[in-house]
Amino acid sequence: MRMVDLILKKRAGFELTSEEIHSIIDGYCKGAVEDYQMAAFMMAVCFTGMTYGETAQLTDAMLHSGEIVDLSDLPGVKVDKHSTGGVGDTTTLVIAPLVAACGGTVAKMSGRGLGHTGGTLDKLESIPGVNVERSVDDMRDIVKRTGVCVIGQSGNLVPADKKMYALRDVTGTVKSIPLIASSIMSKKLAAGTDAILLDVKVGNGAFMETLEEARELAHTMVGIGKHLGKRTVAVITDMNQPLGAAIGNGLEMWDAIRVLSGKVQKRDLLYEVCILLASYMLLLGGIAQTKEQAEKMLNEAIESGRGLMKLRELIEALGGDTSYIDSPERLFNTRRTLDICADKDGYITHMDALKIGVASSELGAGREKKRDKIDPAVGILLKKRIGDAVVSGESVMTLYINDESRLTEALELIDAAYNIGAEPVAPPSMVHDIITE
Amino acid sequence: MRMVDLILKKRAGFELTSEEIHSIIDGYCKGAVEDYQMAAFMMAVCFTGMTYGETAQLTDAMLHSGEIVDLSDLPGVKVDKHSTGGVGDTTTLVIAPLVAACGGTVAKMSGRGLGHTGGTLDKLESIPGVNVERSVDDMRDIVKRTGVCVIGQSGNLVPADKKMYALRDVTGTVKSIPLIASSIMSKKLAAGTDAILLDVKVGNGAFMETLEEARELAHTMVGIGKHLGKRTVAVITDMNQPLGAAIGNGLEMWDAIRVLSGKVQKRDLLYEVCILLASYMLLLGGIAQTKEQAEKMLNEAIESGRGLMKLRELIEALGGDTSYIDSPERLFNTRRTLDICADKDGYITHMDALKIGVASSELGAGREKKRDKIDPAVGILLKKRIGDAVVSGESVMTLYINDESRLTEALELIDAAYNIGAEPVAPPSMVHDIITE
Repeated sequence: MRMVDLILKKRAGFELTSEEIHSIIDGYCKGAVEDYQMAAFMMAVCFTGMTYGETAQLTDAMLHSGEIVDLSDLPGVKVDKHSTGGVGDTTTLVIAPLVAACGGTVAKMSGRGLGHTGGTLDKLESIPGVNVERSVDDMRDIVKRTGVCVIGQSGNLVPADKKMYALRDVTGTVKSIPLIASSIMSKKLAAGTDAILLDVKVGNGAFMETLEEARELAHTMVGIGKHLGKRTVAVITDMNQPLGAAIGNGLEMWDAIRVLSGKVQKRDLLYEVCILLASYMLLLGGIAQTKEQAEKMLNEAIESGRGLMKLRELIEALGGDTSYIDSPERLFNTRRTLDICADKDGYITHMDALKIGVASSELGAGREKKRDKIDPAVGILLKKRIGDAVVSGESVMTLYINDESRLTEALELIDAAYNIGAEPVAPPSMVHDIITE
Repeated sequence: MRMVDLILKKRAGFELTSEEIHSIIDGYCKGAVEDYQMAAFMMAVCFTGMTYGETAQLTDAMLHSGEIVDLSDLPGVKVDKHSTGGVGDTTTLVIAPLVAACGGTVAKMSGRGLGHTGGTLDKLESIPGVNVERSVDDMRDIVKRTGVCVIGQSGNLVPADKKMYALRDVTGTVKSIPLIASSIMSKKLAAGTDAILLDVKVGNGAFMETLEEARELAHTMVGIGKHLGKRTVAVITDMNQPLGAAIGNGLEMWDAIRVLSGKVQKRDLLYEVCILLASYMLLLGGIAQTKEQAEKMLNEAIESGRGLMKLRELIEALGGDTSYIDSPERLFNTRRTLDICADKDGYITHMDALKIGVASSELGAGREKKRDKIDPAVGILLKKRIGDAVVSGESVMTLYINDESRLTEALELIDAAYNIGAEPVAPPSMVHDIITE
């Protein structure tokens, strides 16, 4: 099988066989397929796509390129959750302890933030002492004690994805549903999970900007799960404004603690999405039989304080200072705050998640490149959301600042990131679709 | 200008600026743009195409990657001719001496055969003693003496094309109109020509299989010429059967000598196409003012023997044994011949140029890889063409054989390469279109 013939077959839009796909990925990992051939192949995939069957085989070939974590000695059905990335998207910090508090087993490998999107590891590390760079054995021990652990990716998982992603990044082939889906799913499957809950974000702050694209990605990933025998559910949620009111690492940890403490207002977007996601995790884990039952269990875990207790256990197990759980406002104790105030009366009609995410990153909360340092305390706290009424002079959001060097850039983004209109608008629906098969 | 952004721009179907295109080609030649980025870029071009303006800029950037031959000291308008490659396509060996015999200046760099297509250099070398590996100065001297010279590519012309073509060959990006057009035109322009006549082949033995594709390639190359200020005309000719009756190097030299000797039958396809191409060369060179005048001059050059004399001068200048001009049948004096005979009465309805070209190559006339050795004497001589009547047992073609090792493969191709039907069919038209702007 010559690689050039497989490229030509894909260029012409034909379906590759399982054997052909495995030979491409094996060849690429072993160096028999060159970077330039893989780049041409992936660009052809960007244009002609792949069937669900091909994408599943691609995922399988990538999955088997490295180690696969075995969590079979841990009790219960292991359910992993993955978000395609957004702004103010703090769901893991809420859901992981909450599901464990309901009797689920959550052994999760998570990522760091890049660009305008945040990462769970950075948010965990906003608490002094936390160390997330742990081995799989450490994770296993912590899960056995507490039912929950979140660490960084450990071991040689899916080396094919690392090599392919580095190449995609410099060859304009990042945006492709089959390549995105196989990258996500191969990593989730390599982490040893039994079932997968996917949170596919859609909107101006998400990688998928239209509902059509988000649905295609969701269906593709659910299709991969089905082909490879892992139960997979995808929820499509809104990212046309930040999900949580807090953007920034310490701020988002504070927000997660707030939700777990039961201090939710009558309509809290983060709370709403967390309950939805966690209820599907309980269903996939076989802990609840109906969505209503799951929601009841989750609300009881919040009200009883068991959810927050699990977060405390997790932070303690990771070496963190748990006193921050009791006074989380210390997590964003910056040198300076700045309120962005409305210049007229009206209603918030628009909030750009991407611009707010980039602005927070400019303040020091995020990184442009993988090795950039971040400041855990800085960020943005939204006082108003889409649909809220404002009066002239009222704060729309507060910036938490330690370093003013890029404040000008951040303020320029913030000014363009929201709009005040004369007429009230309805808040956008947070959940757009749920795909179970 | 980051290469990844230029790839993304082309992937999205936008038109690149002249500056952007030059930065890609310069960067690739200097190593700042990696092979894998160029491969992804060229695959994106395969899908989204390029405008004539972009393709002209690409050609210009490639042209300036190396030496450009200066032929300004040679008299007259230098007109180059290029064929996109076919089977039994011996036009250069006829046209170059014929145009010189009419007063034109022909200083031409030519190529070798690859796959099922023949190459002028191999055909010239079928005459013992001929050496085509010459310097540009050698070519210049020979042209000054005789008005005509054909040599191999000399000097560091268009290194960008060499690098890009080697990459295209292994990344499935060979077939792309803008990439083919810029590759051809950059090499022609680097060879120092004033005007260009293109013979775009279409049919089962040509790279362009449909008239639509051939027209697009022709228009693109004429468009490049216009953008870069070089008069360019493209003729689209038929390759649904071999052009000349002879296929193989010595055989095609013999066929060219036959046409130059005026020994043409009442309807000779090779003669017909040669007169058409040569007349456009005289028009482009300003030697004739009308097509009728050009045709008259060319026929006079054949009848007077001046055309054949020019071929003799060329062969002599290249060191060849001119006695072969007088007895060209010595050029295909093989150990064995084999006649392929009709198994029924009827009419030739179909002849597959590709299969006949590959069969001739299997007999030893061609090469699969650039370094393969070829046998100048072997090949195929067609006794019948599409539309001809045959009776059972009559020879359809003769194979000239020295080495029987791949005869089985050749015969299998030959058997599938023609068809005898009960009803007469019209011979296909040889000229499909002429594109002058």
